[in-house]
Amino acid sequence: MYTDDSLVLHTDAYQINMIYTYWKQGIDQKPVVFEAYFRNMPFDNGYVIFTGLERMVKALEGLHFSQDDLDYLRSLNLYEEDFLTYLKNWQLTATIRAAYEGEVMFNHEPIVQVDGPLVDAQLLETLILNIINFQTLISTKAARIASVTNGQPLLEFGTRRAQELDAALWGTRAAFIGGFDATSNVRAGKLFHIPISGTHAHALVQAYQSDYEAFKAYASTHHDVVFLVDTFDTLKSGVPNAIKVAKEFGDKINFQGVRIDSGDMAYLSKKVRAMLDEAGFTDAKIYASNDLDENTILNLKIQGAKIDVWGIGTKLITAYDQPALGAVYKMVSIDGQDTIKLSNNVAKISTPGKKQIWRITDKKDGKSEGDYLTYADENPNDLQSLHMFDPNHPVISKEVTDFVATPILHDIFVAGQLVYDLPDIFAIKDYAKNSLANLWDEYKRILNPETYPVDLSQSLYDAKTKLIHDIRQDIKEMPKQ
Amino acid sequence: MYTDDSLVLHTDAYQINMIYTYWKQGIDQKPVVFEAYFRNMPFDNGYVIFTGLERMVKALEGLHFSQDDLDYLRSLNLYEEDFLTYLKNWQLTATIRAAYEGEVMFNHEPIVQVDGPLVDAQLLETLILNIINFQTLISTKAARIASVTNGQPLLEFGTRRAQELDAALWGTRAAFIGGFDATSNVRAGKLFHIPISGTHAHALVQAYQSDYEAFKAYASTHHDVVFLVDTFDTLKSGVPNAIKVAKEFGDKINFQGVRIDSGDMAYLSKKVRAMLDEAGFTDAKIYASNDLDENTILNLKIQGAKIDVWGIGTKLITAYDQPALGAVYKMVSIDGQDTIKLSNNVAKISTPGKKQIWRITDKKDGKSEGDYLTYADENPNDLQSLHMFDPNHPVISKEVTDFVATPILHDIFVAGQLVYDLPDIFAIKDYAKNSLANLWDEYKRILNPETYPVDLSQSLYDAKTKLIHDIRQDIKEMPKQ
Repeated sequence: MYTDDSLVLHTDAYQINMIYTYWKQGIDQKPVVFEAYFRNMPFDNGYVIFTGLERMVKALEGLHFSQDDLDYLRSLNLYEEDFLTYLKNWQLTATIRAAYEGEVMFNHEPIVQVDGPLVDAQLLETLILNIINFQTLISTKAARIASVTNGQPLLEFGTRRAQELDAALWGTRAAFIGGFDATSNVRAGKLFHIPISGTHAHALVQAYQSDYEAFKAYASTHHDVVFLVDTFDTLKSGVPNAIKVAKEFGDKINFQGVRIDSGDMAYLSKKVRAMLDEAGFTDAKIYASNDLDENTILNLKIQGAKIDVWGIGTKLITAYDQPALGAVYKMVSIDGQDTIKLSNNVAKISTPGKKQIWRITDKKDGKSEGDYLTYADENPNDLQSLHMFDPNHPVISKEVTDFVATPILHDIFVAGQLVYDLPDIFAIKDYAKNSLANLWDEYKRILNPETYPVDLSQSLYDAKTKLIHDIRQDIKEMPKQ
Repeated sequence: MYTDDSLVLHTDAYQINMIYTYWKQGIDQKPVVFEAYFRNMPFDNGYVIFTGLERMVKALEGLHFSQDDLDYLRSLNLYEEDFLTYLKNWQLTATIRAAYEGEVMFNHEPIVQVDGPLVDAQLLETLILNIINFQTLISTKAARIASVTNGQPLLEFGTRRAQELDAALWGTRAAFIGGFDATSNVRAGKLFHIPISGTHAHALVQAYQSDYEAFKAYASTHHDVVFLVDTFDTLKSGVPNAIKVAKEFGDKINFQGVRIDSGDMAYLSKKVRAMLDEAGFTDAKIYASNDLDENTILNLKIQGAKIDVWGIGTKLITAYDQPALGAVYKMVSIDGQDTIKLSNNVAKISTPGKKQIWRITDKKDGKSEGDYLTYADENPNDLQSLHMFDPNHPVISKEVTDFVATPILHDIFVAGQLVYDLPDIFAIKDYAKNSLANLWDEYKRILNPETYPVDLSQSLYDAKTKLIHDIRQDIKEMPKQ
């Protein structure tokens, strides 16, 4: 039995097999650059909010092959003993750059860049993608939901429906960064300092066999109370008993409101609001939690639902309407030479070269003009005027002046050493908020947003065009077998 | 910073708040029974394959509040110090019953039953649901895929798209139990003894800048080889070079075949098959891996695609077409009294009472007649003839004789002590296979399957009907506020 929790084997078998080939052939230390990027925004959204960096840093720091890992690999009878010794001595020596957590990012932009020996780049691919794909998906979903609630409190309630434990834990962290205010997951509260939220469930009412007795018991033992009112009958039993108990306890409790977890939310919330108001509880809030997401919320709002606080579970924590995000991770340079992955699908052709992303903002209002991808050693701030053009349609272009170009990729590990101080989660949440605020609204619409410009520098564009041409030529000239 | 990996707080905040109320009011030790069950099969499937038991057992064994957990709860300033001491001394004393992993299960059947003090039942809800919901979802998706591939090898390739690390790891275990043959995740191979699979990626070809050089390098360093042929051009470069290298190496390698990861799979696989056959490699297999699931596989088969081995990623590991399964967990008994959760939606009304599930099979052929839910102390084997009726439409009924009734729920923990030996994964996989084999084909169709009968004993049915009536009466008689 191998039981340690080493993550170095949290990778695809082909990575180890390729590394074996590289090592046997003596090219495992060849310098390469790999970049991870998205090709399609999830939910047809206009952007993603990048999250996953903290988890990635913690996974990579001190990553090594444990004795269990080596014993397991030996048991496969696929590799020479010298290779296992090589793996035993392996340690991260690559330089890894990434966007900051909370950064707004777009299609075809390198989010994580691994710049180092071939062995490192190959070994880390799967782990990095597994982390950033999921977390970025959830923070983006959270931002979409937050964009329709106008600052009303958003509570993450999804643990029981999450895809296993890590998804519940890291998913709710991503949701908090993306715009949520609290989580029901106590462990996430403990580990990430996210505010936690939750009062009682139907089980409490069943335990006392009565709304009235249950609410009274809860109010006797807690100061802040939200009563769940739909166990037996929301309007006939739940709300009247909530009001009765709230009146009986008066100032002894902070009656925050009632939660509705089933039934027609628009109809019920209006009725409940009227009942609360009539009883004098005009400050009491109505919490709703029943398979909600940005679309149901929009519809409820249009119907005049009187909901003040939103508890969101399944649809958020699993990104129900698109449960996977497809970041890819491609070699863009080897031995200092640009390299490319071709495809018959233009959007699937990678952009060669070790890159930097520059966010081009207007000097006056700080709003984004678009992003500009360059070779890592170019700096658009050296230019007076920037020629920005759509790489798929170069005639669509603009000249930008009076701009600031801010680099998006930052050193996280340099030569294998962590050089980045992880910010606290509140700083990350603020960063995401500011990053979003600098985007024009037309990119943030949840339906049919405008496409944010992600342009290439002339040199990147020329290099990509030439590489595509050269490879197509090579294939044409291949001798028939 | 709280950093230990205690799972006891992997629960919703309201559970702790309810426990606080129970403890303050002295009812935390009241005997209760809670049952977890599904109300809707995922993907409109006819059944689920239950998985998650091993993970649940490991999570519950020795579960306790760590010092970090208590320090964190103290920091919330919500609970008396005596309560924290109480939690510190808490240990599992409940009896927990569950179906075996790999069991075929249906709507409204208790899959996990927690029978013990109220505090235990409340504390464990979220953790149990988080585990069984996800794993059962994935094993069921895997079984659907396996049902259309007629025994062709199925490889799980989804780690990079999984919803964080646990989902990749436990998801691929669930997929293996549900019918898959191997995984690409090396860590899952190590921890669960699942066979691993994978040869090389596009990166190898990019590292050598040539299909031919890359295949040669791989063949020089591995015995079993599958060449990925779509890096530059499948038909013009990938396959011709795969054949060239296979011929050059001859018996020095085991040329298992080629993998196609993009393009039109039906068209390409037929062309590739012809090229391999013409070159004499009639035993070489064609591997396909590109956003596949049971529906795309069916369509490819109808079009005569020549695919022998299926690599399935995203659509399986996230259960893409329905990424959440909604097991609920309801109190069915308290202090020896049946209890119920009402709803305006009939399917959402729980069935009261501590239950057993009996699988009723024909004595002759071992095929299922349906499942029969009883109070835990009833035993249908005492009866000569069983009156089985649809609880929603009691006139639809049948009399079954010459049957065997096999209990589905088994003791896992008794009074907090683990009494169950976890079987190895191959035994679980076999169990799932046999459990499925006993089901008639009409319940296993992936589109519009027949509904498997899940019936109630007369006494359960009568008790449920009476409880619904009594509570409705109580609500009607409630005084107006």
